[in-house]
Amino acid sequence: MAASNEQYPPDFSDERGLALISDIIDWQINHGSLLKHIDPETNFPDDPSQCYPVGVTVFPTLFPREQFDRACGLQTIYNELYCAMAEDEQWIFEAIRDLIPVDPLAAALWGIHEEVKKVGYAQKVSVGIFRSDYMLDGPGAEFPLEPGKSFDGSLKQVELNTFSCAGATNANKAAEMHRYFTRTNAYDTGNGHPINISLAALPPNNNIASLSGCLATAHDTYGSKKSVVATETAVLFVVQPNNFNIADERPLEYALWDRDPPIPAYRVNYPVDLLQYTTLTESRELLFHPPWLGSKCVEISVAYMRAGYETHEYDTIGREARLRIELSMAIKCPSLLAHICTFKRVQCALTAPGALEHFIPASKAALIRSTFVSMYPLDDSDAGARARRLATDPELSQNYILKPSLEGGGHNIFGEDIPDFLASLPESQWGAYILMERIRSPSVSNVLLSSSGLDSGGVISELGVFGTCLWREGTEGRHCEMLQNSVAGWSFKTKHEDVNEMSVVKGYGCFDTPLLF
Amino acid sequence: MAASNEQYPPDFSDERGLALISDIIDWQINHGSLLKHIDPETNFPDDPSQCYPVGVTVFPTLFPREQFDRACGLQTIYNELYCAMAEDEQWIFEAIRDLIPVDPLAAALWGIHEEVKKVGYAQKVSVGIFRSDYMLDGPGAEFPLEPGKSFDGSLKQVELNTFSCAGATNANKAAEMHRYFTRTNAYDTGNGHPINISLAALPPNNNIASLSGCLATAHDTYGSKKSVVATETAVLFVVQPNNFNIADERPLEYALWDRDPPIPAYRVNYPVDLLQYTTLTESRELLFHPPWLGSKCVEISVAYMRAGYETHEYDTIGREARLRIELSMAIKCPSLLAHICTFKRVQCALTAPGALEHFIPASKAALIRSTFVSMYPLDDSDAGARARRLATDPELSQNYILKPSLEGGGHNIFGEDIPDFLASLPESQWGAYILMERIRSPSVSNVLLSSSGLDSGGVISELGVFGTCLWREGTEGRHCEMLQNSVAGWSFKTKHEDVNEMSVVKGYGCFDTPLLF
Repeated sequence: MAASNEQYPPDFSDERGLALISDIIDWQINHGSLLKHIDPETNFPDDPSQCYPVGVTVFPTLFPREQFDRACGLQTIYNELYCAMAEDEQWIFEAIRDLIPVDPLAAALWGIHEEVKKVGYAQKVSVGIFRSDYMLDGPGAEFPLEPGKSFDGSLKQVELNTFSCAGATNANKAAEMHRYFTRTNAYDTGNGHPINISLAALPPNNNIASLSGCLATAHDTYGSKKSVVATETAVLFVVQPNNFNIADERPLEYALWDRDPPIPAYRVNYPVDLLQYTTLTESRELLFHPPWLGSKCVEISVAYMRAGYETHEYDTIGREARLRIELSMAIKCPSLLAHICTFKRVQCALTAPGALEHFIPASKAALIRSTFVSMYPLDDSDAGARARRLATDPELSQNYILKPSLEGGGHNIFGEDIPDFLASLPESQWGAYILMERIRSPSVSNVLLSSSGLDSGGVISELGVFGTCLWREGTEGRHCEMLQNSVAGWSFKTKHEDVNEMSVVKGYGCFDTPLLF
Repeated sequence: MAASNEQYPPDFSDERGLALISDIIDWQINHGSLLKHIDPETNFPDDPSQCYPVGVTVFPTLFPREQFDRACGLQTIYNELYCAMAEDEQWIFEAIRDLIPVDPLAAALWGIHEEVKKVGYAQKVSVGIFRSDYMLDGPGAEFPLEPGKSFDGSLKQVELNTFSCAGATNANKAAEMHRYFTRTNAYDTGNGHPINISLAALPPNNNIASLSGCLATAHDTYGSKKSVVATETAVLFVVQPNNFNIADERPLEYALWDRDPPIPAYRVNYPVDLLQYTTLTESRELLFHPPWLGSKCVEISVAYMRAGYETHEYDTIGREARLRIELSMAIKCPSLLAHICTFKRVQCALTAPGALEHFIPASKAALIRSTFVSMYPLDDSDAGARARRLATDPELSQNYILKPSLEGGGHNIFGEDIPDFLASLPESQWGAYILMERIRSPSVSNVLLSSSGLDSGGVISELGVFGTCLWREGTEGRHCEMLQNSVAGWSFKTKHEDVNEMSVVKGYGCFDTPLLF
């Protein structure tokens, strides 16, 4: 990538660079592009009022427009695919059957599903806020900046998240920020520079409006309150206690309240407060009556899950809390089976021949499949045997990543570390992991700004596309009926090329905006 | 105030109170209602990215609607008065003549004025962003909450600020915050409670739109660029370096850029960067060409002063910087003489018989005068002699405050501390102070939330009314011609009743919203 690295980002003087950085920090402070401080001992905010800007790139990062458009174009197909999967209990069970004995989260979720099945799900409609993540593949691919030439690498999917998808608000704000500095000429390099940062090259991002709009549609779909003791219906944000990343959650609440007419949106900590402050009526309305609503009691139309994705959240209390939500009439974002579809093992199962065609037409399946890299379960199948050979070989393993079925960040094993890691693990536990071909992105240059300071150099980016959808359990042989299916917006995260992890809120990368060329 | 204290604020359970406080902190983080951390050693931000919420009241604070409306109604008269004063050099000189030898800031500003006069002011139009501060007077006055009864105290002016008026944005956000919690029923106490916090009782506050709108009008009034080397005109925010209170300044810049068409707004540190990055053309256009604008050079239409109010800012470099601004064609916010009108000594001079009538019609003067308390210079006049008797008497001094001519916060001497303070000062320095009758506000109850924690109890509030105006030097015997004259919005600050100082950003009080009754 020598060619573009010489041309981009613009080479600012120290004085100009420092002025820009000061402007960026102030913009973030004024626009809630912030994280709460975390006590490194407890991993929780030590003082919930202390905050600092989330990591962002100083400049937008080059990204081929064709691949950006392609990713966005795929999202409604991915939505359709995952909605259909989420209604195919048998298929999901086949996909995760081997996982259940070795993955306590899979076991807990499947157990809750079986519990609910005994009495039947009360709500046929579900809502999805999904995020499909991609990287550019082709380490030596060129980013040709001359008109008419196109990027010769391709776009590969890292994962598809169906549950508690984070980063939408942070990404929305980063996009607004880079647009602000473009509008105010802060990036202006004069006419002589080969790459012009213009608004036309920065895609707009409307995640906050899209995601809150999707929750609003679900709320409306729920209809009027059924319970006589409730005063009204409301959306419930089910959240983790002491979250340090509230700037990613809260704006969705504010956006619901800001609608005309306003949609009441409340939040509750999962699982303790949820159990304490909700009740299920006989007809399974979910009522919410915390002390901070005074004597008021609201009926939950939509349970938007921003908690319940970690194993430790499913102790006895956690299971009971999730069971209550799943038993209820509330529309879940997402449904329990849609949640399970976020497992890597499910992603892996989709790479099997014919798997996609089970859910979507062949023409759409081909488009989706073109974004797949090789994935293998580490089980006793033929594919599993091949995966074991690849994973235990110090040479071959370099091209792979070992991922626990539910990633959650920070638990992946990269390349040459895989053989030793597996050797340290009883073979009975290997089934909890999948082996995935490593995506090698071409490096471009940028300047990263985070709490650890400035970092200039080669970077690689991950593009996430947010999809929102509303679906109803299918009838007459169809998996599901799509009630709404949209591309909501995107997230774009960039990290130093030598860092394996990508988690901005944990300090491994920066929110960013693609500079499309 | 026993009556209202029993009824207000609502008595929330600990659980409900903690939930509300958590919601408040998150709202502030998400809406830029923040301050940067300050290193207590240097008084500057130690790390410019670390921030925390500005102090706010948990509930809005009771305030009589009649007095709020009265204060707002007076503002256009105050605007008119101060614009007229600002064009009467002789009157101002008489008012501060004795101050010049003892107050280095007064001496510096007057010196710059005399310098500019030698060549003449190049710009006849000025813009004002003023803030008139009031407190309720009448320590035993009742806050009758029954309909039809009115507050039996009165409204008295604390001071009128003409320069670098802070708090507009912070106040705007506090008002939005209390409105948000009202809209979302967080204050809802059910039907049984005597005081209902409703949107109708909370006045809206549009400071950000009003102040930026006023700067925009001034920008338009300046007209097109005169210099051939400039690419465009722009508003310049002249600011103090390393400001910790950027959340009060930046939103005005953003609002200018957000206009359609956008108005370019840049900021420059005073005085060093201002001297380095501006030049004055022969025809006195003020050009701005910092390294962060690349090769671009803009012509300053409006110089909005948020720096230059402290004595230490007028060393040789500071004087040169201010002189350059004042010599320029740029419309100043405010003019140098309008700046001098912010001195307490000028406020004191206005209390002299006939002073107001020199500028405004008698009917308007009477309305203004009704907000005055007694003020005395500590000079050799008859009034001064009386002031010395009051100030040096341990008994009598209790009803007074001793204020340096330019307050700037933190330098007032209260009541019984005055005699000892004056005794410690050479009498030749006494002329730098004025003695002002103390305003005794009735106490009401509220809960204050600041970085030092929660504080429940008796509180008193200060209402500031923001006025914006644009005026041209008068002709044919008139002091000035008003081109625009508006009430912009308000600030409302509340502190514990036992604390003398009122400075939210220094931790002595909280931004608040009046709950009008």
